[in-house]
Amino acid sequence: MERHAAGPGRDGFLRVLSPPTSIRLLDPLFTTDAMREVFADQARLQTMLDFTAALARAEARLGIVPTFAAAAIEAHCRAELFDPQALAYQAAAAGNLAIPLLKELTARVGERDPQAAGFVHWGATSQDMIDTGLVLQLRRATALISEDLARLADALAALAAAHKRTPLAGRTWLQQATPVTFGLKAAGWLSAIGREGVRWRELTPRAFVVQFGGAAGTMAALGDDALRVADALADDLGLRLPETPWHAQRDRVAEVATALGLTVGTLGKIARDVSLMMQTEVGEVAEPDAPGRGGSSTMPHKRNPVGSATVLAAATRVPALVSTMLAAMVQEHERGLGGWQAEWETLPEIFRLAAGALAQTLRVVAGLRIDTVRMRTNLDVTHGLILAEAVAMALAAHIGRAPAHALLEAACREAAANGRHLREVLNANADVTKHLSAADLDRLLDPANYLGAAEQLVERVLAQRPQEP
Amino acid sequence: MERHAAGPGRDGFLRVLSPPTSIRLLDPLFTTDAMREVFADQARLQTMLDFTAALARAEARLGIVPTFAAAAIEAHCRAELFDPQALAYQAAAAGNLAIPLLKELTARVGERDPQAAGFVHWGATSQDMIDTGLVLQLRRATALISEDLARLADALAALAAAHKRTPLAGRTWLQQATPVTFGLKAAGWLSAIGREGVRWRELTPRAFVVQFGGAAGTMAALGDDALRVADALADDLGLRLPETPWHAQRDRVAEVATALGLTVGTLGKIARDVSLMMQTEVGEVAEPDAPGRGGSSTMPHKRNPVGSATVLAAATRVPALVSTMLAAMVQEHERGLGGWQAEWETLPEIFRLAAGALAQTLRVVAGLRIDTVRMRTNLDVTHGLILAEAVAMALAAHIGRAPAHALLEAACREAAANGRHLREVLNANADVTKHLSAADLDRLLDPANYLGAAEQLVERVLAQRPQEP
Amino acid sequence: MERHAAGPGRDGFLRVLSPPTSIRLLDPLFTTDAMREVFADQARLQTMLDFTAALARAEARLGIVPTFAAAAIEAHCRAELFDPQALAYQAAAAGNLAIPLLKELTARVGERDPQAAGFVHWGATSQDMIDTGLVLQLRRATALISEDLARLADALAALAAAHKRTPLAGRTWLQQATPVTFGLKAAGWLSAIGREGVRWRELTPRAFVVQFGGAAGTMAALGDDALRVADALADDLGLRLPETPWHAQRDRVAEVATALGLTVGTLGKIARDVSLMMQTEVGEVAEPDAPGRGGSSTMPHKRNPVGSATVLAAATRVPALVSTMLAAMVQEHERGLGGWQAEWETLPEIFRLAAGALAQTLRVVAGLRIDTVRMRTNLDVTHGLILAEAVAMALAAHIGRAPAHALLEAACREAAANGRHLREVLNANADVTKHLSAADLDRLLDPANYLGAAEQLVERVLAQRPQEP
Amino acid sequence: MERHAAGPGRDGFLRVLSPPTSIRLLDPLFTTDAMREVFADQARLQTMLDFTAALARAEARLGIVPTFAAAAIEAHCRAELFDPQALAYQAAAAGNLAIPLLKELTARVGERDPQAAGFVHWGATSQDMIDTGLVLQLRRATALISEDLARLADALAALAAAHKRTPLAGRTWLQQATPVTFGLKAAGWLSAIGREGVRWRELTPRAFVVQFGGAAGTMAALGDDALRVADALADDLGLRLPETPWHAQRDRVAEVATALGLTVGTLGKIARDVSLMMQTEVGEVAEPDAPGRGGSSTMPHKRNPVGSATVLAAATRVPALVSTMLAAMVQEHERGLGGWQAEWETLPEIFRLAAGALAQTLRVVAGLRIDTVRMRTNLDVTHGLILAEAVAMALAAHIGRAPAHALLEAACREAAANGRHLREVLNANADVTKHLSAADLDRLLDPANYLGAAEQLVERVLAQRPQEP
Repeated sequence: MERHAAGPGRDGFLRVLSPPTSIRLLDPLFTTDAMREVFADQARLQTMLDFTAALARAEARLGIVPTFAAAAIEAHCRAELFDPQALAYQAAAAGNLAIPLLKELTARVGERDPQAAGFVHWGATSQDMIDTGLVLQLRRATALISEDLARLADALAALAAAHKRTPLAGRTWLQQATPVTFGLKAAGWLSAIGREGVRWRELTPRAFVVQFGGAAGTMAALGDDALRVADALADDLGLRLPETPWHAQRDRVAEVATALGLTVGTLGKIARDVSLMMQTEVGEVAEPDAPGRGGSSTMPHKRNPVGSATVLAAATRVPALVSTMLAAMVQEHERGLGGWQAEWETLPEIFRLAAGALAQTLRVVAGLRIDTVRMRTNLDVTHGLILAEAVAMALAAHIGRAPAHALLEAACREAAANGRHLREVLNANADVTKHLSAADLDRLLDPANYLGAAEQLVERVLAQRPQEP
Repeated sequence: MERHAAGPGRDGFLRVLSPPTSIRLLDPLFTTDAMREVFADQARLQTMLDFTAALARAEARLGIVPTFAAAAIEAHCRAELFDPQALAYQAAAAGNLAIPLLKELTARVGERDPQAAGFVHWGATSQDMIDTGLVLQLRRATALISEDLARLADALAALAAAHKRTPLAGRTWLQQATPVTFGLKAAGWLSAIGREGVRWRELTPRAFVVQFGGAAGTMAALGDDALRVADALADDLGLRLPETPWHAQRDRVAEVATALGLTVGTLGKIARDVSLMMQTEVGEVAEPDAPGRGGSSTMPHKRNPVGSATVLAAATRVPALVSTMLAAMVQEHERGLGGWQAEWETLPEIFRLAAGALAQTLRVVAGLRIDTVRMRTNLDVTHGLILAEAVAMALAAHIGRAPAHALLEAACREAAANGRHLREVLNANADVTKHLSAADLDRLLDPANYLGAAEQLVERVLAQRPQEP
Repeated sequence: MERHAAGPGRDGFLRVLSPPTSIRLLDPLFTTDAMREVFADQARLQTMLDFTAALARAEARLGIVPTFAAAAIEAHCRAELFDPQALAYQAAAAGNLAIPLLKELTARVGERDPQAAGFVHWGATSQDMIDTGLVLQLRRATALISEDLARLADALAALAAAHKRTPLAGRTWLQQATPVTFGLKAAGWLSAIGREGVRWRELTPRAFVVQFGGAAGTMAALGDDALRVADALADDLGLRLPETPWHAQRDRVAEVATALGLTVGTLGKIARDVSLMMQTEVGEVAEPDAPGRGGSSTMPHKRNPVGSATVLAAATRVPALVSTMLAAMVQEHERGLGGWQAEWETLPEIFRLAAGALAQTLRVVAGLRIDTVRMRTNLDVTHGLILAEAVAMALAAHIGRAPAHALLEAACREAAANGRHLREVLNANADVTKHLSAADLDRLLDPANYLGAAEQLVERVLAQRPQEP
Repeated sequence: MERHAAGPGRDGFLRVLSPPTSIRLLDPLFTTDAMREVFADQARLQTMLDFTAALARAEARLGIVPTFAAAAIEAHCRAELFDPQALAYQAAAAGNLAIPLLKELTARVGERDPQAAGFVHWGATSQDMIDTGLVLQLRRATALISEDLARLADALAALAAAHKRTPLAGRTWLQQATPVTFGLKAAGWLSAIGREGVRWRELTPRAFVVQFGGAAGTMAALGDDALRVADALADDLGLRLPETPWHAQRDRVAEVATALGLTVGTLGKIARDVSLMMQTEVGEVAEPDAPGRGGSSTMPHKRNPVGSATVLAAATRVPALVSTMLAAMVQEHERGLGGWQAEWETLPEIFRLAAGALAQTLRVVAGLRIDTVRMRTNLDVTHGLILAEAVAMALAAHIGRAPAHALLEAACREAAANGRHLREVLNANADVTKHLSAADLDRLLDPANYLGAAEQLVERVLAQRPQEP
């Protein structure tokens, strides 16, 4: 395999080695470009180098490392100077990426200034570099997630508000139950998305912390300067300094995974609803159309719910990946064997899928094609059965709940068996007409009259939204 | 199978039907009696009945249901009046427990007062009863977890404080790395347990909410009274009223599962450490002894780490159960088909295992037998190699970090190959002795002198603990 | 908690202690009575005792244990003589069930014959007893699964044969695609169920083996008799003797779990299809009706697909439980710490859910109510679009595949936009009518003429079924 | 981002567009180059094109497609002619890779021969192309796995044979139990690896089948030729023709995942054992050394078990990925929404990790450094306790099993408490010396005399191995 042109030339000029970020074949389907870049190989290297540069700066600020050395180190902390493929093969032997990266970095710094090379990575260990680098990636990734969650909340709020009075068949156990409104359905989605935002804010102080402990977490290599260095490092990176290193205490990163798991679960619920409402036989909504979107290689008429499929795929995959993060928490002693390594690709993969699912949902929700006529028509397919509860409640006021329920159950069975409308059956039943007139029944059997608190509930959800400053 | 004595007799007196809570064969190993009772069949029925009674009271307070009816309903809302086995078989047909339970309840209320029977479950749906009942169980279960987390934190804090200066071999990748203290290890555990407590407090407002929406979430059966009833119901039960029903938005309960997953992950990490330190060849700690505990059916000398095994079993099982809760979030429309049902046994099972793991850890930590002599002895098994970094850092100040690292690497290899102490090898190396005297080396090779910030870190963790009021 | 009447009385008569098998509240919904009994607490104890009795018999046969001792041991190997609750609490201390059970057994044998007591469990270890007991349970459980798989295959074969020519809308991505037959759908289900049967047969020789290795797998306690005892034991129990003990090599039991995982996955697919076809708006099939089945506590008209919901719940839960069995395979040395213990409740739970899912599927399939009229009607809801491919292929023979596809895509869009039938649109298009007459189009737009090889495929699947002897 | 040089030029010569296979940063650590290539983007495209070419050839053979068209199609079915990045973005819109790939392919064929273009993908659907392509990848991937399994079995057999009499401390619950041999441990590993080979052979006829069904599985687009085309296609590709398409019946591919899950579980068990034996305090084995392998960025003396860590990481990740494949089996109707898409990256990821784990295990086992002296020394660390069972069994012949067990239990406790050797304690006990002389005790307390059937068991396992032809 051909390599990119070689590194620092004899002329002393740095040469760029790292190739552009590669795209996996299914990346554009399953994730966003922005999230892909946060966890791209080059970003992985760069955040590790960011740690290394920050450490040198912090130590220089405290007089532990000479200023010239820190400057020389910082100058070489650029991912594009390194050959990721070579590092990849060296990492396979070393067991992690930090070791070959540091070796290369030290060599390059040393070519310019042998003395400075001696101060690379002063007092730190591989995991400090890898974990803090990860936290820097998490911070960017979280910002992307939060932004898209906010956008999605806006789009859902718009839907909820616009359709708070649009009647829709409520469905339980995949059977029509009683009428709801499309706005209430959207408000349910919105309510859950709103809680995701709260969770992300709460976990921030736990997740965005520096990792710095040295070989076994005592920072012994730095002697009495240890905590001052740690403080300065955290300050430089804009991260919090935790009370103790967390090399083998992984709840911080596992919690991030669980938050993503909850987010993707909620997105999966939305996608399931959308795709069911988009079924040929239901036809109440449709994913937005676009050239080349959702067609079939063989069926000219197909418009597949590609967005929902992608979200549902993520919702099938992410729970298991979250379980891996939880299982990986059982790490040995001061640094684990297998558990830590299991995290390396898993957490980025969860972000990758969550970002994709979020973007797809945003796209679907923002461009959703809504057929309110069809929603109304579908309320009639049961010939009144969907309003059986309405009549039963009205009748219960006269004859008690259980007898009313039994009477309606029989009436529903009769209507269904004979293909008649429930209205007819009820109008022909003296036990009903004794208490309810034909006009009463007409009113009771109109879905628009049996929407309960749907509108108020939508307004409660909308009122709950955090106010902009 | 024999039944317990039959129900309400002809004389009008209620008879107790429900048998005492049964114990599964592995319950005492895998959970606590207290948690078993929270999720016992009888408690399941009782919390559903608590909802039903509270609803009747709330509706009576608002004048929607006659006071006598509410009183009659409440009088029968006692789980011990019902035959769980009969309900179990009826639930298999009905699809959930609420339907047969309500049918039985209505029948019994009706035997006393046919009119009152008509007001049972007024305006609610099965899932309102089942979910709110679950939340009532969660509230008790969470209290148990929180109490044990607090006890465990106390026990860990005591360990951390007592051993903040007790040298111990730090181990990474299952290899001795550099010295730490046993107190630092305990402080790491404590720090993670402390974060669990914070998480539980944060999720409380999201989790402890009433479920009340009626058939499809609109509370239509209650007409204009809907939100007032909901408010009064929540008030009666001491739960928060959420902005909208959450029949098919399951992040609330899934989040509880993830919090338990994180807790069990941390407990698994502690158990892994304890069991490794208790290995015959390491012998630094031992689980507390007790008659009949940890013996072998065939080996007279065995003392098995039963507590750790149980915790590790939970840590193997819970991540997957959490993934089920996340996967189950994808629920259809207003109420789901399969997802909701998948939760029913899964969330209790997670609590069951978490409670057991917590109790076992508490027992192990509180009674841990600690052999500080063996800890010290084990620091010598590498013949000085464990302090190679200490010497390397000292030498680095003279010859730079990379050369010092390389020199020590060679010295370590020589020492290991020839079975010599690192001290000897270094004392015989002019590149070393040029900069470090024999006394310097003695000092550097004493683990007590290379504990870094261990003590300060322990104190930081202890200082972080929430203050008692 | 009250205990059952106490054990062996002073009069020397044995007294029954073990209570009848208890039922958990959701057992009848999620499993079968037969499977519940296979893994009931009492069966767990009995199979362990069966091992112990068989070992004594085998050793007596070889002259290692006196015949009278074997007889005395065997006489007490009855689960109903033991108090499961007391054993449960002792197991919590001991770490497994075998230790207290053996202690009790030895005490009881000793009350009758102190000499015989010395030969209880001769040369075996706890895990031999527990694992072989498990294999005895697996054998029964597997027989139950296999029988129901065979019954389900018969029911599916009947469906497939009866409906091999019944047109049905084929659906992909939840959109109508092209016509299929209902028989072909059933044949797809049948084909998968058939493969499950094959898998079960293949794994039998790996799974149904005795576990016998003594303390650490060498059978050292039996000296030179070891393998002869092992052989005789296996023979007595009708199990195969594996080439070596498998205390910490768990692929045998994990494989059983994966086979169940595949079975439940296939059942979930069937349930998903049934529940989608049963939607109010589709109405092509319905789960069989029965009194008390699938009603609602509030909606008189509801008929919920309870069977499908239960199967889908199992299909949501079992994959994660399988992952636990796989994760638990990483067991330490000669016997593991945590992994083995993680299996104890997990594998029975998988069987429990699989049996329930299988029974529910069998019930649904055997009693499925099929509405072939509705199937036919639903083929018309797209106004001909579902046959777009048929026309495109016919046209492709004249103008090439891509132009034909593009032409039909445009025609479909036009038909959908204007609410016209595809026939009309095509008949008005000269590029079409140039090649296809109105009669051609009529023929092409009849679903019955575009069923391809559906019937042949059904017959291929039916022909594939194993022949009865 | 820069693109590679553009496609077919005006001069009519094909130009290579597809870039060389990219390497992800952790690929060399977590997988093999060979497996990476099997599932590389280019291979993904190529196997889909292989299907397309084979279909054209098969249809030409049957006279359904003109020979010149098949030739033109085949000529363009080369992955390197396509721009994977462009396809990736188009796939994101289309929902799968087949649609844009076919569009591009058709365009290119059409540039050369417009008539031929009309025959691309004749009668097939996207999923036929994608799934059959996947099966072609699985066939190659399976061959790689099988080869490495065979190599690993050879290496393990060599270990088992060489050390069948090498005493080693057997350990249960992480405590020394009784002596075993290192060969017996290796034979246990070998036995499990042997079963993996059998499983792979058994699933082959189920897994290596063509997917061919057209739009909804009826092959309707091919009319009466359907099954003949399917047969010819399968024949061309060397795959079996299944009795019916399996678009939404996914047990075939899920089963492959479970087989990999079992394999990785067994590898994880080996890695756990190796890493525990390699602990600083145990030191019985070490992973093979190599320059740059397993060092530390800060500790000069470290030799980390990099191979075991990698395998354990895989064993933490793969179970969850398998659960995804099982959960994804619940696919809707004729082709699923979300489930199928969830497989696309999951199954390759499982192969990726399994191949890496297998290669790492092979490397570790083949080069394992074994310290039989240390194995022997470690048998002494309990001062005779590890042979307590041996003495107990000898004593049991005189005083019965339970009294002997109790006596030894007390003796062990005394020895441990006073730091004395078990021999001393026993020699001072008249209840022992009455039956066992000092010489008897010496013999009983020699591990070499208490290896039971270890050697025979090793030979049984070795004899079980399949014979070479």
